Formats: sequence, structure tokens, C-alpha cells
Amino acid sequence: MVISSKFLDALTPSSIRSITAKIRDKAKEGVQVTSFAGGLPSKEFFPIEDIRKINDWIFEEEGGEAIQYAASDGYDPLRQYLVKFMQRYQVTDIDYKNILITSGAQQGLAYLAKGLITNGSVVIVENPSYPGALDTFRAYGAKIVGVGMDDDGLKMDELETALKKHTKGVAFIYTIADFQNPTGRSMSIERRKQLVELAEKYDTFVVEDGPYSLISFDGTVMPAIKSFDKYGRVIYSGSTSKTIAPGLRIGWLIADHESITKLVYLKMRDDLQVNNIAQRQVYRYLKDCDFDGHLQTVIDVYRRRRNVMIDAVKNSFPEGTHIVVPGGGLFLWLELDPSVDTLAMFDYVFQKNIAYVPGVFFCPDGSGKNAMRLNFSTASEKSIAECVPILGDMIRQYIQEQ
Amino acid sequence: MVISSKFLDALTPSSIRSITAKIRDKAKEGVQVTSFAGGLPSKEFFPIEDIRKINDWIFEEEGGEAIQYAASDGYDPLRQYLVKFMQRYQVTDIDYKNILITSGAQQGLAYLAKGLITNGSVVIVENPSYPGALDTFRAYGAKIVGVGMDDDGLKMDELETALKKHTKGVAFIYTIADFQNPTGRSMSIERRKQLVELAEKYDTFVVEDGPYSLISFDGTVMPAIKSFDKYGRVIYSGSTSKTIAPGLRIGWLIADHESITKLVYLKMRDDLQVNNIAQRQVYRYLKDCDFDGHLQTVIDVYRRRRNVMIDAVKNSFPEGTHIVVPGGGLFLWLELDPSVDTLAMFDYVFQKNIAYVPGVFFCPDGSGKNAMRLNFSTASEKSIAECVPILGDMIRQYIQEQ
Repeated sequence: MVISSKFLDALTPSSIRSITAKIRDKAKEGVQVTSFAGGLPSKEFFPIEDIRKINDWIFEEEGGEAIQYAASDGYDPLRQYLVKFMQRYQVTDIDYKNILITSGAQQGLAYLAKGLITNGSVVIVENPSYPGALDTFRAYGAKIVGVGMDDDGLKMDELETALKKHTKGVAFIYTIADFQNPTGRSMSIERRKQLVELAEKYDTFVVEDGPYSLISFDGTVMPAIKSFDKYGRVIYSGSTSKTIAPGLRIGWLIADHESITKLVYLKMRDDLQVNNIAQRQVYRYLKDCDFDGHLQTVIDVYRRRRNVMIDAVKNSFPEGTHIVVPGGGLFLWLELDPSVDTLAMFDYVFQKNIAYVPGVFFCPDGSGKNAMRLNFSTASEKSIAECVPILGDMIRQYIQEQ
Repeated sequence: MVISSKFLDALTPSSIRSITAKIRDKAKEGVQVTSFAGGLPSKEFFPIEDIRKINDWIFEEEGGEAIQYAASDGYDPLRQYLVKFMQRYQVTDIDYKNILITSGAQQGLAYLAKGLITNGSVVIVENPSYPGALDTFRAYGAKIVGVGMDDDGLKMDELETALKKHTKGVAFIYTIADFQNPTGRSMSIERRKQLVELAEKYDTFVVEDGPYSLISFDGTVMPAIKSFDKYGRVIYSGSTSKTIAPGLRIGWLIADHESITKLVYLKMRDDLQVNNIAQRQVYRYLKDCDFDGHLQTVIDVYRRRRNVMIDAVKNSFPEGTHIVVPGGGLFLWLELDPSVDTLAMFDYVFQKNIAYVPGVFFCPDGSGKNAMRLNFSTASEKSIAECVPILGDMIRQYIQEQ
């Protein structure tokens, strides 16, 4: 007997993870794919020696307590440290009780989805946006409404039109304000302030997802939308998946005390608590290791890889390809000639063992057909310099064969 | 603005964790509570030296890959090893694709709740049963129906009556067949077989939760209900929280391939994947360390503590106290004179810095008012021998003062 319900039967494989699965299948056959599809940070720079050292500290200092049951709201020293950490984004008026530790930022997004979306709720997102979030919001019953972006981020006039149209039931506005996934764009400070005002005016929340904010190629870290939040309308979602390592699964939500308490009750139902050791690893790494030095290394590597990728795209992709140059993050967003369908083209390119993510995966309104997202954080400069031209050739060939 | 919804606002603190919070508050004031309230395994026996060794192996062999993003269904070597591990319970006809790794067994229960419960669904449970499960089922909309137990476990005639009464919408029957929480009772083999037949006859599922099965004081490990499941009606939930350590948060669900696939899609929405290192720690511990020797140590310690506790209860509790002698697990279930309200008595006893769990927390029908659960796995023999008589005295005094 297969388990079945309206909720379960509506779930589909997450779109990007379906590509990951294709790549894994080839890997099992011994074929190495050059994947520009992942959202992965580069594992060669994970601070594994520090993490090993921290593991020893943990057990020396705490013994068995380090792997006993623990509090649902999180490991207090980590929560306290994150209060300080949030000053990097100019978020200053919080204490540790404003913070819930989650198993990766994805879990925080899922909690907000479960908590705030009822059937028929609208969630407004940037168009395009992160498919993993869209899939989660949809699973919990949201109607997704995409609002356009320009180089200053979410367009405020379009946003207000959408808010006006859905006067009841906008559960929240979801935004990745810094080095957005997939476009690499950042929201201007002016718009951050406007966004808070619009949330207040239309009685809704902003969910600000900040996984890439510190991966800034010129070193500028923008003030979070949360830093302008005088009304308590912004729920901030943080993560160290891109700055330390994703396999640790550490994220956090920031909201008012009472909202956090409700989310803790949800966590008690859902999985009791986050892995103890991972919470200590992140805490000790931030506090006692060279996080900033490590971050600078990652930034330097990713900046170089971005540059190599942009050059290769300029030299090899068909004319008329539009490049959004990202100031940080992991991704390059490309718009090809409107006649190209990047989803239809995927398997054609995949023959050459190169993968990207079709733009349509990011666009709730079905746009983005001619776009693609390339990840520049995973492959080496050499591999990018070699494989992007092959990708460019395949695109040209594909267009010719149509 | 506090986040709000019908779902969120109905959540309350988990009942047992509210006691844990009281104990933590006293601890912050420097007062040491002797807690017989927890469901905690004893941290003094956690295999921390082995876990440290394994941490080193992991990074030596895998480097950064060990903390990169990973598959949503779990770490394949662990899934494959668990296929073998399940032979301990005579579950033999599965492969690794029947197994989903979860962040503790609680997460698996929450997935089944989310997946199978719709508003108005009935979930049938043993009366009394584990409050953490009941709270989760309730949060996702279930009406909980308790069915009585005797020394052979869930009463099959009462169960069939309940199944007949709720002809539509019994989402599943939840059972802890071995050394049940809170009663310590185990279900007879005959009833395990009958339970599978009833699930088939009444077109529902059995969710079999097996966290205590290996903590068997005479060494007998019963065949799981899942081992009699010729219809695919049983979903098994496993955990190493009681046999290795809970802070690692490793659990697993076993079901048919198609059901597991649906649950993987849910996991993709909810938190992407389980902590990588914890999955490797459990895998390597089971495979390469002395799990059975460790288990024997834990069993021996818990058996001695159980014996000391039973003696102390016999010598100090008021006459008419009924003791259920558990053949394994962590808990002693006591029924006092029907006039005693153990919930009302809690704060009176807590003055002496001793805690237990009131029986009513375990009983969906509001019964169990005169019962209490004592945990014997956490406190030392000495502490049990000293504090249980104090508890006994307090109960006598309380009765006298009423």
C-alpha cells in the first residue's frame, strides 16, 4: 500500500534536485559531468582542519553532554554569538531570544510556509527566484506571484500593484536582497526601506533570505532589510551553508520573541532540535577560528571564477546574450535570444556532460524560457575556461539545428 | 507584528518539554533537580571516544565532501547498513531504497503526520502513549483515539471496535510495540500478527515506533510488527537516539519504495537533507565499533537502575501503588491510589527538587490522573536509592494534606 493524500500526491521532485540526480546517475556510470547547475559552495575550501579541531574541543570540554538531547530553540552560545554576528548586516536591536536555530535555512523557510500559508494564500516573490523556496511555498498551499526586478532589485511599483490586487491573504513577500539567486542582483537601500513601508501599509511580512550576503566581491556588506524594520514586519533567514559548509545544516530565523516562541513549538513537533555538534561547530568556528580570513579566501576564488566565466561567455556565447554581472554570490544569470528554449535544450547540451539550470525553473509565471543560471563557485578556473566555450558551441549548434 | 495562523496559534509547548524547562530554570539558579521526568539515555555511557575517532576517519577519507550538500534520501552506506541492521528485528525483505534517513525519529513521525493526516483524521494510539508523538499528530489535525493495553500490549478487541467506529479516516495506528513509552510493556507476537491483519481489513496503516527495542534486559529482541507485514501496511520508524546518542539526531523510516519517494519529496521541501557527519558517525559506529558491547553495557546499567528503582518504590510508596515491571527500555509506570492527582501534586514534589511526569500527559482520553512515569536510565543507582524514598515520602505527605 502506497501512502497517499492530496498533500503528498501533489509533491514532485524538486526541480533542481532532478538535475542533480541526472548528474549523479552519470557519475555512477563513471562519467564526470561539469555541472554549472548546482548551488554548491566549493568544497575544496571548506575549513575541515578547523572543524576537526573543534570536534576535539567539544568532546574534551563537554563530554557526553555534547550529544545528549538539547533545547528546541537552539544552543544558547550560538544564539548569543549570532546576535553579534548580525551586526555585520546592521541588525542591532535583537537579543538571543529573537533567534531560532534551524536545520539549514530551508527548514526556517518551511516553518514559515507551514505557519503562515493557508490554502489560497499568496506569496509574492522576485521573478525569477530560488526554486527550493518556491517549491516549499507551493507544497504548503501558496499561490506564487512573481514581481519583476531591475538592477536595483524588486520593482516597488509592480510590488504595490500586486499587494493592492491581493488585498487579503498575502502571507509574505519573499526576497533574497543580496546577490540574489539566480540573478546575482542586490536590492538598493532605498528599496529596502520602501519594502518595509509597503509591508506595514499592506499588513504583511517580508521574509528576507540572506545566504549570500557576505560573499561580496568588493567587500561591501549591505544593511539587511531587517535593519530598517521598525514595525516588526521582517523575518530574517540566515545560513552558514555558503560561508562555512552546507552539510552541517545550520540556519537561523530572526523575529520578535513571541513569533520565535510559536516557531519553537512547531520545532518541538517536527524534529525536537537541531544536531548538537553542528551547532557547536558553527559557534566555535565563528568565535575561535579565522572566519573572516576564510571568507576572504572564498570571495577571492569566486571572484576570479566569476571573471573567467564572464569572459568565456562573452567570447563563446551567441550574440545577443545578456549577462547580468553579479557583485557577489555564486551565480551568473544569462538571457539568450528569445527564440531559445533552455529547458528543451538541456538534454542536448547534457550529451557533452555539461549541465546548467534552465531559467524557467526560477520563474513562477512561466517566463525565463530563454534564460539559464550558471554556477561559478564549484568548477575551477581551468574547467570554466574549458567548458563554457563548449557550452557556447553547443548552444550555437542547437540554434542552428532548430 | 506577531506571526499568526490557526495552525500556529493552536500550538502549545510540548508537555514534557515544559517540565524540562522548569528543571532548566532551577539549574540556572544553581539548584540541581533529580529528574525522573526525562526520556534521556544516560550520557555517561555515550561512546564519545569512538565518535571522535570516527570524526577523524571521515575527514581523512572524504575531506570536504563530508560537509558538502548531499542527497535528500540519506547517506547510501548508512541506508545499506540499516538493511542489515533491521535483521535484528527479523525484517528481511527490504533494500536500501525502502529506507529514508530522518533527523531523529521524531521527524519521521512528523512527515507521516503531515502526509497522512487531514483535518478530521483519526489516529489510534495506545492509551497511554508517547506525548511527543501525540502532540505532533494533533498539531497536524488528528483526532487522537486511545485504545487500552494489558500486559500483552494493545487490546485487539478494543482496537477493532475503534476501527469499526471510525470506518473512514483512520490515518494510522501508532504503536510502540517494544518496552513501550510510558508503560514498558511489549506487544505479544500473536497480537503483532493480528494488528497487521486488522490494518489490512480496515484499510489503514500501522506506524511502528521502535526506539527501545534493543534495550532488552533479558536480551530477547522481538520480531518487529513490520516483519509480519505481508500487505505493506506497516511503516517502521527507527532511531539510534537511545542506543548511541540522541544529539546526533538520526532516525529512519521504512516503507515501500513509492511511499519513500513521496517522503523524500517532502524532505526536499522541509530541510533538504540530514546532517552529513551525523549520518557517517552512526554508519561507522554501527559498522566499525563495538556497538553490541556498548549496548550490553547500557542494558546492564539500566537493568540495575530499574531494579534499584523498583525496590525503592516498593519500600517507600504508599500501599496500593501498582508497578508495571518493564522488561526493557527507560521507564517505570506507576499507578497510585485513584484519589491522587499526580498533575496537581507535581509542584508539591518539585519543592524537593524531584521531578516525574504526570500520567495524564500520556493519556489522550484524560485518564492516567493517578499515574506517573519515572525514568530510570538517567540517575545513578545511588541517586535513585536516595531520591525515590524522598518522592515516596512526599506522596504520602501530599495524600495526608489533602
